[in-house]
Amino acid sequence: MHNRIITISRQFGSGGRTIGKEVAEKLGIPCYDQELIEMFAKESGFSEEYIKSSSEQTKRKGIISSILADRTYDTHITEDFLWEAQKKVILEIAKKGPCVIIGRCADYILENDFNCLSVYIHADDSARAERIVRVYGEREDSPKKRIADKDKARKAYYQKYTKRKWGNAEDFDICLNSNTLGFDACIKIITEMY
Amino acid sequence: MHNRIITISRQFGSGGRTIGKEVAEKLGIPCYDQELIEMFAKESGFSEEYIKSSSEQTKRKGIISSILADRTYDTHITEDFLWEAQKKVILEIAKKGPCVIIGRCADYILENDFNCLSVYIHADDSARAERIVRVYGEREDSPKKRIADKDKARKAYYQKYTKRKWGNAEDFDICLNSNTLGFDACIKIITEMY
Repeated sequence: MHNRIITISRQFGSGGRTIGKEVAEKLGIPCYDQELIEMFAKESGFSEEYIKSSSEQTKRKGIISSILADRTYDTHITEDFLWEAQKKVILEIAKKGPCVIIGRCADYILENDFNCLSVYIHADDSARAERIVRVYGEREDSPKKRIADKDKARKAYYQKYTKRKWGNAEDFDICLNSNTLGFDACIKIITEMY
Repeated sequence: MHNRIITISRQFGSGGRTIGKEVAEKLGIPCYDQELIEMFAKESGFSEEYIKSSSEQTKRKGIISSILADRTYDTHITEDFLWEAQKKVILEIAKKGPCVIIGRCADYILENDFNCLSVYIHADDSARAERIVRVYGEREDSPKKRIADKDKARKAYYQKYTKRKWGNAEDFDICLNSNTLGFDACIKIITEMY
């Protein structure tokens, strides 16, 4: 077994990222989130913006829209290529030492070779809607639609690469509802269990 | 809001019942498990044995087997009748005071009217197989088959009456893997969160 890693999978708007960052701070270990995107960009040669959207696109681009957008590559092939780059980077950072990794199917990528504490953070829809407006601001789409779109995209991405259903309790060591339990309680549980 | 209740849903062989009992003992509140069956029996007029099997039958009895077994009632109707008796009893005990309730869809029955901490306990298949042989002894069927049969039956029962998927993280406040975290850690988390 290698280093002890905490992986945080999270619903959009559940505060999983904030919880993961605070856990890392309390434990004095690094937290990889936005840093991962930068590393994938370096590894794959794609732009950070493109990588960011790759796991959260609800509509797959077809040939016509690819041509219109002057994209000569096939979206599925680039997604698979990105997945391989992502796997490589995540395995490399896990080898470096104990850390918290947010999202990006790290739970699945690391589960066989690392001593992971896999966590899933979720919250009630109303709490998520309230949070995304507070954190990310208002958008043209309603909070309800923004949540539904992200849920759909994350589910599809996770299922495509892990062959698992997103949000299945049995795939994680701990699943926590961040709004019924509260952020502090979630941070406490994860930190204590580590 | 009424009394604070802990509901424990659990995979067969995960030790959820043991964890629930210890949590109740630590908190000094009653734990309802086998006691529920006795209360349903009183409420419904059916035998304890029949009630016990009603939520864990993998094969629904057809007309011919009902006749052969000299059962003149329709299985689905009696199941629905039992469900209503179960709901009534669970609501009554929840009104009495804080407690732990094991299984029987109590999480779903109480969620709107009570201040519940809903917990789902699961474990890896190998740990469950080892545990059921240790706790319940060897049977003609393999541990793997016994687990698969119970999983199938609990899923079907839960889905029929709650219209939810069994084991979906988002339906619970806390989901815990009892073999990766350990029983003591599960008891500690639930007790602290209460």
